[in-house]
Amino acid sequence: MIVPGFTAAGLAAGIKKQGGLDLALMVAETPVAAAAVFTTNRVKAAPVLLCRARLKRGTAQAILVNSGNANACTGSQGKRDAQDLTREAARLLKIPASRVLPASTGVIGQLLPAAEMKAALPSLVARLRPEGLPEVAQAIMTTDLRPKTAFVQETLWGQKITLAGVVKGAGMIHPNMATLLSFIFTDAAISSSILKKLLMQASNRSFNRISVDGDTSTNDTVLLLASGQAGHPPVTDLDMAAPFGELLCRLMGDLARQTVADGEGVTRVYRVVVEGAASGLEARKAAATVATSPLVKTAMAGADVNWGRIMAALGRSGARFDPERVTIAVGPHFIVENGQGRGQAAESRARELILAGPFTVTINLNAGDYQDFYDTCDLTEDYIRINASYRS
Amino acid sequence: MIVPGFTAAGLAAGIKKQGGLDLALMVAETPVAAAAVFTTNRVKAAPVLLCRARLKRGTAQAILVNSGNANACTGSQGKRDAQDLTREAARLLKIPASRVLPASTGVIGQLLPAAEMKAALPSLVARLRPEGLPEVAQAIMTTDLRPKTAFVQETLWGQKITLAGVVKGAGMIHPNMATLLSFIFTDAAISSSILKKLLMQASNRSFNRISVDGDTSTNDTVLLLASGQAGHPPVTDLDMAAPFGELLCRLMGDLARQTVADGEGVTRVYRVVVEGAASGLEARKAAATVATSPLVKTAMAGADVNWGRIMAALGRSGARFDPERVTIAVGPHFIVENGQGRGQAAESRARELILAGPFTVTINLNAGDYQDFYDTCDLTEDYIRINASYRS
Repeated sequence: MIVPGFTAAGLAAGIKKQGGLDLALMVAETPVAAAAVFTTNRVKAAPVLLCRARLKRGTAQAILVNSGNANACTGSQGKRDAQDLTREAARLLKIPASRVLPASTGVIGQLLPAAEMKAALPSLVARLRPEGLPEVAQAIMTTDLRPKTAFVQETLWGQKITLAGVVKGAGMIHPNMATLLSFIFTDAAISSSILKKLLMQASNRSFNRISVDGDTSTNDTVLLLASGQAGHPPVTDLDMAAPFGELLCRLMGDLARQTVADGEGVTRVYRVVVEGAASGLEARKAAATVATSPLVKTAMAGADVNWGRIMAALGRSGARFDPERVTIAVGPHFIVENGQGRGQAAESRARELILAGPFTVTINLNAGDYQDFYDTCDLTEDYIRINASYRS
Repeated sequence: MIVPGFTAAGLAAGIKKQGGLDLALMVAETPVAAAAVFTTNRVKAAPVLLCRARLKRGTAQAILVNSGNANACTGSQGKRDAQDLTREAARLLKIPASRVLPASTGVIGQLLPAAEMKAALPSLVARLRPEGLPEVAQAIMTTDLRPKTAFVQETLWGQKITLAGVVKGAGMIHPNMATLLSFIFTDAAISSSILKKLLMQASNRSFNRISVDGDTSTNDTVLLLASGQAGHPPVTDLDMAAPFGELLCRLMGDLARQTVADGEGVTRVYRVVVEGAASGLEARKAAATVATSPLVKTAMAGADVNWGRIMAALGRSGARFDPERVTIAVGPHFIVENGQGRGQAAESRARELILAGPFTVTINLNAGDYQDFYDTCDLTEDYIRINASYRS
């Protein structure tokens, strides 16, 4: 999990009531190229606003993140806290405050315990080390059950290129990356304008194609920092950068699937593929509507091959199609043909697959040539239990 | 529950595996003015398609409805079944088949037990009586816990006017009336073109403003029949019909609130009011997004005054507003002012109200003059339990 040019560390600063790691720092040796994708929610947390402003120049040197408190809907004090904390981190790191990016996740509407956090910063800086990233993965967890990391290495442009990332998600995961924080590091040498395009592209194939409960948050942030220490000539051309884009897609796809699998109360993970749509937008809407339908999700929790609910979700998705031309398959087993069920035997085979593990629901609308997908999960009683008592 | 000019009856025809009333008939003495609102789902059940076709002329004489089976996604056999069953009912009633409107609710994708249903029709016709409507309310239930009826009488145009209605809902309730069947009867004398406008208007203030789980169905149908036996001169003018429209709104509002209260696993019912929106559409979108948010619904289940989730839902609703100007109140107690929480004491007072019973969440966006509302309910573990095992 070591990416040349970066160090990281996490510790327990006392932000989480229940204890555990809750503050983390990631630092580059020098200012490096950086790119970000933020929440599209109109209500944006203080750290999101500050991070976005500081990233305008396309470079950064450190990320300071906490869990247990979102620092959202906290007014001017929330903004001051984000500024003070990054300023203190910058002072200890002996760099300008403008190079430190803040991020937060947790409960909305409560002020950060800024004094405790500030007091923990010297120990955090002292812990910084090349192999510290897994500790960050732990320190950003909220209702996540497992820390989530990913790592890839491949030879590009004649050099070994390394990519590593961490993510936290669990509840509220939805397109446009609700309550999702992800930090990705590479030693590739790529300009920030190219990084930004590649990150957007990869987000649309990963974090923007997953859904746990359809809610979106005030704090979502994906940051990508590139140290340039891999030793190849800087990449400033989009075509030349394409193989790196593929690598980034693979890494972020891995993180996205881990995020769905770790969703609150999740017992089953599946992909909804819609083919044969009349347009790209309709393919996406149809896949999203089926993937987020509470009735489809609860049926999957019960391993009930209730394809009627899939038909009903398609019907309200806004996609144009003739219901009597629809086919639906679970894995290789067709359960619907021409809009009608293929009977008990087909459903039993599908049920076996659903019980066995990750599976794909493939829907063909037979209305055109477009396709899209969503990775999603079932909706269980545990989801309710976790979310009815989140703040208590 | 007697409306002059109508008789009704329900019985157990063996459609529901678990037993209970599942077939009902409502009959007018003569052909009467009729209006309907149907599902907007692109996947429409066979009875919806037939009912819509038969209602084109604006008159009808009978409604045949079953629960336990939706007769949706059943292809040409499903269409034949709807036709055969209404033809047989018409034969027994000695009226043309074109005057009998079909409706179905229940599991999607299975053929009706048409033979058993046909065999039950003579007994059903024999049971028809003026006071039979409560039996219909029972016969249309699926996962509903309680039969739902409403009744109003008022003097209009110098005569006593009666309105009575039944509804079934429970799961899948959402704007555009998912898995919702409602049959409404009056003795007023109103032309079908006026009836249609009044029904649409009242739907937009009742069934199209409620939400249980955000899903919508293939079978939703609201039918309104007017026997004209009240003895006043026929109303053919929209202004003159306005007081009847009010009465219809009140009856349907009553039925809609009963439907939310009887939603699957529901323990709390509340209204989300959005004021101060920049447009009518934004008021509606903001209210709908808060009312359907799983995270807000689960917080309400736990009586957790988690207003941050309300802010986050508003932020992704598409409504334009400045987060720092938002106020949120539960009943008369403000919990958010200028986008920030008003603290523990305010939240405790709000919590008392949430625990006490039906309450209103009033959100002011301070961005304009438009307002709208949704009636909704919490999301509990029981919802999942019911829906994970619906077909087994």
